[in-house]
Amino acid sequence: MSEELFYVGRRVPKLDAPAKVTGQVVYGHDMKLPRMLHGKILRSKHAHARILNIDTSRAKALPGVKAVITAEDTPEIRIGWARDHPVLKSGKVRSIRDEIAAVAAVDEYTAQEALELIKVEYEELPGVFDPEEAIKPGAPIIHEEAPNNIQEKMRQSYFHGDVHQGFVESDVVIEDRLRLPFVTHCCMGTCFCLASFSPSGDLTVWSSTQMPFLYQRDLSMALGIPATKIRVIKVTMGGAFGSKLDMYPFEPICILLAQKTGCPVRITFTREEEFIASPTRQPVICDIKSGAKKDGTLMARQVSMILDNGAYSSWGATTPLVMMQSISSLYRVPNVKYDVVVAYTNNLYSGAMRGYGNPQATFVIECHMDMLAHELGMDPMQFRLKNANQPGDVTGQGVKITTCGLTECIERAADSVAWVEKRAKPGNRGVGMAAMIHVGGGARIYPSDGCGSTVKVDDYGKVTLVTGSTDMGQGSETVLAQIVAEELGVPVENVTVINTDTDITPWDVGAHASRTTFIAGNSARLAAADAKGQILEAAAQNIGEDVEDLDMKDGKIFRKGEPEEWIPFAKMVRSKHFRPDGDVILAKGWYEPPTERQDKEFRGNISATYGFAAQAVEVEVDTETGEVTVLKIAAAHDVGRAINPMAVEGQIHGGVSMGLGYGLYEELVVQEGEVLNPNFADYALPTALDMPPIESIIIETDDPAGPFGAKGMAEPACIPTAPAIVNAVYDAVGVRIRDLPITPEKVLNALKEKEAR
Amino acid sequence: MSEELFYVGRRVPKLDAPAKVTGQVVYGHDMKLPRMLHGKILRSKHAHARILNIDTSRAKALPGVKAVITAEDTPEIRIGWARDHPVLKSGKVRSIRDEIAAVAAVDEYTAQEALELIKVEYEELPGVFDPEEAIKPGAPIIHEEAPNNIQEKMRQSYFHGDVHQGFVESDVVIEDRLRLPFVTHCCMGTCFCLASFSPSGDLTVWSSTQMPFLYQRDLSMALGIPATKIRVIKVTMGGAFGSKLDMYPFEPICILLAQKTGCPVRITFTREEEFIASPTRQPVICDIKSGAKKDGTLMARQVSMILDNGAYSSWGATTPLVMMQSISSLYRVPNVKYDVVVAYTNNLYSGAMRGYGNPQATFVIECHMDMLAHELGMDPMQFRLKNANQPGDVTGQGVKITTCGLTECIERAADSVAWVEKRAKPGNRGVGMAAMIHVGGGARIYPSDGCGSTVKVDDYGKVTLVTGSTDMGQGSETVLAQIVAEELGVPVENVTVINTDTDITPWDVGAHASRTTFIAGNSARLAAADAKGQILEAAAQNIGEDVEDLDMKDGKIFRKGEPEEWIPFAKMVRSKHFRPDGDVILAKGWYEPPTERQDKEFRGNISATYGFAAQAVEVEVDTETGEVTVLKIAAAHDVGRAINPMAVEGQIHGGVSMGLGYGLYEELVVQEGEVLNPNFADYALPTALDMPPIESIIIETDDPAGPFGAKGMAEPACIPTAPAIVNAVYDAVGVRIRDLPITPEKVLNALKEKEAR
Repeated sequence: MSEELFYVGRRVPKLDAPAKVTGQVVYGHDMKLPRMLHGKILRSKHAHARILNIDTSRAKALPGVKAVITAEDTPEIRIGWARDHPVLKSGKVRSIRDEIAAVAAVDEYTAQEALELIKVEYEELPGVFDPEEAIKPGAPIIHEEAPNNIQEKMRQSYFHGDVHQGFVESDVVIEDRLRLPFVTHCCMGTCFCLASFSPSGDLTVWSSTQMPFLYQRDLSMALGIPATKIRVIKVTMGGAFGSKLDMYPFEPICILLAQKTGCPVRITFTREEEFIASPTRQPVICDIKSGAKKDGTLMARQVSMILDNGAYSSWGATTPLVMMQSISSLYRVPNVKYDVVVAYTNNLYSGAMRGYGNPQATFVIECHMDMLAHELGMDPMQFRLKNANQPGDVTGQGVKITTCGLTECIERAADSVAWVEKRAKPGNRGVGMAAMIHVGGGARIYPSDGCGSTVKVDDYGKVTLVTGSTDMGQGSETVLAQIVAEELGVPVENVTVINTDTDITPWDVGAHASRTTFIAGNSARLAAADAKGQILEAAAQNIGEDVEDLDMKDGKIFRKGEPEEWIPFAKMVRSKHFRPDGDVILAKGWYEPPTERQDKEFRGNISATYGFAAQAVEVEVDTETGEVTVLKIAAAHDVGRAINPMAVEGQIHGGVSMGLGYGLYEELVVQEGEVLNPNFADYALPTALDMPPIESIIIETDDPAGPFGAKGMAEPACIPTAPAIVNAVYDAVGVRIRDLPITPEKVLNALKEKEAR
Repeated sequence: MSEELFYVGRRVPKLDAPAKVTGQVVYGHDMKLPRMLHGKILRSKHAHARILNIDTSRAKALPGVKAVITAEDTPEIRIGWARDHPVLKSGKVRSIRDEIAAVAAVDEYTAQEALELIKVEYEELPGVFDPEEAIKPGAPIIHEEAPNNIQEKMRQSYFHGDVHQGFVESDVVIEDRLRLPFVTHCCMGTCFCLASFSPSGDLTVWSSTQMPFLYQRDLSMALGIPATKIRVIKVTMGGAFGSKLDMYPFEPICILLAQKTGCPVRITFTREEEFIASPTRQPVICDIKSGAKKDGTLMARQVSMILDNGAYSSWGATTPLVMMQSISSLYRVPNVKYDVVVAYTNNLYSGAMRGYGNPQATFVIECHMDMLAHELGMDPMQFRLKNANQPGDVTGQGVKITTCGLTECIERAADSVAWVEKRAKPGNRGVGMAAMIHVGGGARIYPSDGCGSTVKVDDYGKVTLVTGSTDMGQGSETVLAQIVAEELGVPVENVTVINTDTDITPWDVGAHASRTTFIAGNSARLAAADAKGQILEAAAQNIGEDVEDLDMKDGKIFRKGEPEEWIPFAKMVRSKHFRPDGDVILAKGWYEPPTERQDKEFRGNISATYGFAAQAVEVEVDTETGEVTVLKIAAAHDVGRAINPMAVEGQIHGGVSMGLGYGLYEELVVQEGEVLNPNFADYALPTALDMPPIESIIIETDDPAGPFGAKGMAEPACIPTAPAIVNAVYDAVGVRIRDLPITPEKVLNALKEKEAR
């Protein structure tokens, strides 16, 4: 950390914040194209039923309706990584959100009216809504291809060491069942798609995708349109949190409507539709067994999970691969076994959501760490410190830990809530904590985990970074602008960031796995360094110095160590441009992290570095009402380096609010496949007023692989909050909540049970 | 021309044609932004008057009006290259189009209504509308800074040789006065501007500019906003023809309204406004004297011009610099003198228009060549051939002629109208011709005449060319796509061309001087060659061959001479991308032509090559009505190489229709500064039905400096048509029309005069 930094490390307000807070930004939902039609989707009324007949004749006859489509008159398009999901359903429906028909009309009202004119005859079928029931013999079969209701491609077993021997060698072994509910992303911007074909058949899709380049590929595969004829333009979106990682049926449907009508077609979800038909975080039923020696040495961890996949497989079905990493590698555990079954049910289907399984995995691990500490008679903080990962560790799964601030995170978070004074004290207050590990240097899940960038510097010193990476509101544009500004030595406000239009931007795998600051940051830095080199070379020629003797800072070029005599950097750009053998400044950067894909036994170092965090909370429990009040949350995060401490705090605050909701308030109540609370009145998302004081503690470990030392940190903030609260409630009133959210009812029942014992 | 070409030389339909002919393209005029307001401008009712008072109070009070601005409440912004043009007028108005106030309102109707509520009190001043009158002592003074009504910066004299001596040595000397009228561009898309400020003060302007990068600079200078805070996005526009080369008052006004209201503001001209307030081609009064020896050797040419600049100086005032080139260098003329005065009047002000003065210069030269041939008793075609420029010539002005197909153009055009059989025959039919020279390899009027390009190739083989150049409907995207396709050996339909967004595209000076195919084409070819090199290098590594032994064609990579065994090119791109030390294909090209700026005596070779053309026409004159019917136009153009013969023909047809209108139909009738025919009913633009058969004759001289041999050819087609018609009318009925257009009235009067003699 010896180098002096000017723009990195500064609290730069997000570049897009002024436009967003003043309502001036143009979201996808604000977009209108000439001749644009509005699409609407008719969904199933039943969770499991045979479709006997669809009569669209009255809808087609409604003035203003330009197209009505069903599975009958469109090619079968199966989407999702397991290709088990037809976008328009024929034969039968498998969940209440299922798409049966779609309409394009001159306005949304007409489209809605047309939906109401479509008559569908069903023959109801028995459904199955509990994943444990679903995988029992004799359960109703959801997909003929999966007669046991198991997504076989995700029936996975991982191990390292010998978990049986580990338990034998343990002094204390405990075993529990924990459960996690349906929750959902609650993006302020609902699902959006706008598709338009040129008369030559070139398709442009304005989308809120998080992965424009894989989306281009997915669209091509799904629709049979060559990828060379597809352009994806990422619109300004109101949040994503993983929900825009996959393609959903409404997107090919929107494109089919555009194809059929020859007009641009837009589909936007209503808020109710967003709750019902956008993906969820997957519910988990988890059996966990942990063992340790008397001295607190962790010996073994065995986890067995059933995931509720819902009716179809989106990326949510693959979250066990991320869960596995925490189960294998959070704390030093010599013997681990993990088994998972992903079960089809007639519920909503689950998808990717911030943390991608890690909130569930960390919940079960960190609840159990607390319970094990209790059985051992140890302070849970000390127990964690004893087993904490350390720099240089290679875990049983092959995770190579380089920089690691876990110990410091645990200590600092504990200090912040006055752990030592407040723990295990009488009264209704208590403290609890939880830690986590997460990828912080990309995650190789595709042959390339790279990102390309170009940097252009114009005659006036305006710098444009064109990055393959995707900003979905997380603030990556600002962070990348700071990195470029730092490398080039120009003010941040002179840097414009362009993302993402697949025709223009260089490739990137997408915004997932908290990878953008690390991967796109390294790429942007390389491109900026290339531009800097070009400018300094011109300067060296002009003033007869060696490039090595020159430097650029603050828009000035000078001899190293002699900053008082300088040339304006824009002047040098012009001088290079305006000479006969001149050139303009166009630079590129491509960064591919030095990582590997997992082998068949799931071993391999998929990330160039890892992020760590610990959160500690203080709660007060009202034993009369069962209500839990969080008094404070201390969130200590090892971020490598905070490129923008304000943005890091923003991520922490946002993540903690998501974790708090997971812990205390949020649940999508799904009964017989139906969502009973598809609105913000009944789905209790925490608001700003519900938030406790948060202390963000930034731990900088200056990762040598990261851009200016930074590691990814965006997902982690939501991961340890819920188990920390559960553990604090236990410390406060001695009851252990085993399933989220911690409702007053559950607390009261637990208090009653405890009294009864 | 030995190399085998696959995509260059093919008749590829313009890539944007399907969307345009089906009405699906989104023009600037179709753009709507959320919260967008509509701007309207109040113009002067008088051609010359003192403004005594402007009362905007009633307009401001009108519901829906968001801002009313005048010179009183805005900073003084002076625009145009001579900075003689305040965008909002104070003190006095100098022409009827003058901007007095502007309104932004919620819709156009409200804005229009508000204009009608603004009361302006004037004190009328005597005006001057004839440029000859304007420069006489005692004429009303238009600008206090120019008391003689002369734009002194453009009072220019050029000479080479000794024109006096040239006339002395001539056997025949003739002298005439010729006149050219006001005509205008008649773009189908009227003037357009949409301006929006971000809350951070960053300005985005959607514009139909032809020169986005100089426009960015001009906006910065005019508005005092740093260029680093300005982004110019070129919209799809309905033609430009030079009219979008400069910034006009409505553009800063639009931006001032956006600044004042905090909302995006759009201004689009009505058709009437377009006729009145967009620029014109400048009227010229020309005295020309030419001398030759008996054998037809041209000896001397003296030209003296007065240009009607109108009330303000736009680029139109600088057209003498282009006129000068034809006057000095069209045909071999050892002694030339050229003097020009640009006079302010209270007329509309003139601007750049296709040919940029060359239609006027060529008109006077080519009428006089015909007249001189007549005096010499020579066939005008033979006279032209005798004096035609030849490859290797360096003209008196320092114009270096490399490839030159002028002789072939003259011969082929003459053949096409059966010149020898039809010339000087009895009856009312006649043939005539005219030739021209024009820059064909850029035109260095700025320190850089270069263009930057990038080429990106994605994993699927989709190629994106990001070019600095501007397509304004002329088809440059298609030509550039063909050049990239040829260089990379991929189908044209896989190439997408992105232009122009100053934040994204590399620099280019703009679309003027017929430079795009040549300059941007060379740049695109360099970028494509860079991409090709990157791909072949990867292929060489993969298959263990030398790069030099490999080639790429038709999307395939193979050993030279062994095309039957090949690897798909997209597969190689992916293979390069997906290796650990991989990279994506991002390539760049920067082309700066080897030219020089003119010195103080206007000498220098400003273009890397020159285009030549000859057009021959056959006419029939109705001696009862005076009506001239053009029976055929043969247009022979030396284009170096036709990258796309269909596009070349399109340019020829469009240019000829413009030249035909100039010759026969078009005139903006300006009386006391007022346009009497500001609509398509009264301004007789030729329609498709008015067009005679046109034979396009493409002469390919394979210019070594051009991309695949191409030279610029877009402006030339409109240049020689009008004098060819005048000359044909003379051949038909023996009357010489000395001012355009050749109306039936003028022909009848001339016939009467001729009879009377």
